[in-house]
Amino acid sequence: MSSSAMPSSGTPSAGQHAVTVLGLGPMGRALASAFLAAGVRTTVWNRTPGRDGELVAAGAVSAASPEEAVAASPLTVVCLVNYDATDSVLRQEAVTDALKGRSVVNLSADAPDRARDTGRWADEHGIGYLDGAIMTPTPTIGTPAGVFLHSGPEALYREHRPVLDALGGTHTHLGEEVSRAAAYDIALLDIFWTSMTGYVHALAVARAEGISPTELAPFAQGIGAILPPLFQELAEEVENGTYSGEGNPLTSAVSTMAHIVHASEAHGIDAGVMRAAEDLARRTVALGHGAEGFTRIAEVLGRR
Amino acid sequence: MSSSAMPSSGTPSAGQHAVTVLGLGPMGRALASAFLAAGVRTTVWNRTPGRDGELVAAGAVSAASPEEAVAASPLTVVCLVNYDATDSVLRQEAVTDALKGRSVVNLSADAPDRARDTGRWADEHGIGYLDGAIMTPTPTIGTPAGVFLHSGPEALYREHRPVLDALGGTHTHLGEEVSRAAAYDIALLDIFWTSMTGYVHALAVARAEGISPTELAPFAQGIGAILPPLFQELAEEVENGTYSGEGNPLTSAVSTMAHIVHASEAHGIDAGVMRAAEDLARRTVALGHGAEGFTRIAEVLGRR
Repeated sequence: MSSSAMPSSGTPSAGQHAVTVLGLGPMGRALASAFLAAGVRTTVWNRTPGRDGELVAAGAVSAASPEEAVAASPLTVVCLVNYDATDSVLRQEAVTDALKGRSVVNLSADAPDRARDTGRWADEHGIGYLDGAIMTPTPTIGTPAGVFLHSGPEALYREHRPVLDALGGTHTHLGEEVSRAAAYDIALLDIFWTSMTGYVHALAVARAEGISPTELAPFAQGIGAILPPLFQELAEEVENGTYSGEGNPLTSAVSTMAHIVHASEAHGIDAGVMRAAEDLARRTVALGHGAEGFTRIAEVLGRR
Repeated sequence: MSSSAMPSSGTPSAGQHAVTVLGLGPMGRALASAFLAAGVRTTVWNRTPGRDGELVAAGAVSAASPEEAVAASPLTVVCLVNYDATDSVLRQEAVTDALKGRSVVNLSADAPDRARDTGRWADEHGIGYLDGAIMTPTPTIGTPAGVFLHSGPEALYREHRPVLDALGGTHTHLGEEVSRAAAYDIALLDIFWTSMTGYVHALAVARAEGISPTELAPFAQGIGAILPPLFQELAEEVENGTYSGEGNPLTSAVSTMAHIVHASEAHGIDAGVMRAAEDLARRTVALGHGAEGFTRIAEVLGRR
């Protein structure tokens, strides 16, 4: 097969590569589409049939069973809802047997301990295992905007990197410890979903005060814009253990949080999230850290 | 007095202006310094003496009592810790009497209902009243980076705007309703402190997984950078009542939140904030909105 016969290939030698994608939800379908667009021979399988129509039309091979699917390629990319779903597919004897000597990149999202557990299972069965996380939404797959995190054996990552490159975007190998991608994923999603909760709550409070969502939005964007540089500054503070409260002590944050709780509840708006945040801050003050900075909470949270 | 004699003045006619600043914490001192630097005749007072040394050296007049302070200028800027503190100073008979026919701009932070209450008190006593909020930290005062929100009578705002301009930065008048600045302030601080809590929590979880704060920070900055455009998009969703869950339904957010709670508690890290957020999301799902977008929570929170 001459590579010049494949004008749609993003990777010159991609025609030599083959991959299997297990799980054809919106993200799994986006991954399979990106592989196909890059000229990678792609086999697909999904528990619920009928999800692969467009992919097959674009050249994908539809496997009748997960064991048939994983046997078709040296590398299987898994994109299921969580590790319970991953286990229920991969840990069937026929699938495990078919994976022996092959590799898995698991892009399903779950907690780090599940990644460690799956890594141990793969080791025991002679399966190469990389764990990964996709940090950007479905439309970014196959574009430069995608962000992928990987962890597990470096040699294995290098071996499969040419196929993974077909997904576009930025790929970062975070280390040999297989749970590292999941740990970054959890920490970053913690920031994202906590912030999102703060935002929808603020929209509700603003509305109760007669401020429409689009009136608040430009100012909310201003708050959003100050976060990235602050994240860097505060990370250095926590790393150095300085926790400077100069000009903005924890006690002042507590006072503000109490105003937010009061203003929310005065409108009958649940303030459970801010109450929990205030409680965390008050406990840190009670430990004698009231004059220190807000980041001192990170240190107190981490104590066993 | 010739304006050419005042090279430090930022406002050509500032020499004709006078202002009183009540409250000389770090923010109050920054405000008074900015007024002085712009050539505004500045009288200062603080409950605890000894905070005005540098200001007096820079040309401020130190008042012996709050009634003497407010009598010295047509406009008094108040910057106290909250409205309990504001009330305890302004609602003393001698101070209230001295303020009659003069104006107050209250930049103390508190909940909107306190601003409304202070507005009523001012009306009853013939005092011009504007309520405001400072959205940026102390070092921005007197620089272009400062962000000030104001609300209350438009004519009063226009009258005092030349003096307020001495503080530098951007001043926005949000409307005649006196509590509007406090309402924006509360909503924006809700976003800020909820996000900050998410960040310090993420730093603790990352550390427990062997990821240092400065290793996480560049990725955290990436998450921070996607928030501002998302805030605009989601505001439009809530305003239009569309709540599209396409590609990212609420049920999927709930699943992610459960992973975060699990991963935190597996390390003995309090996950009370994320538990409260997850609870909010689950309640919204239970109302039949699981296939809709995350912003549906704002609508559910706002129901009485």
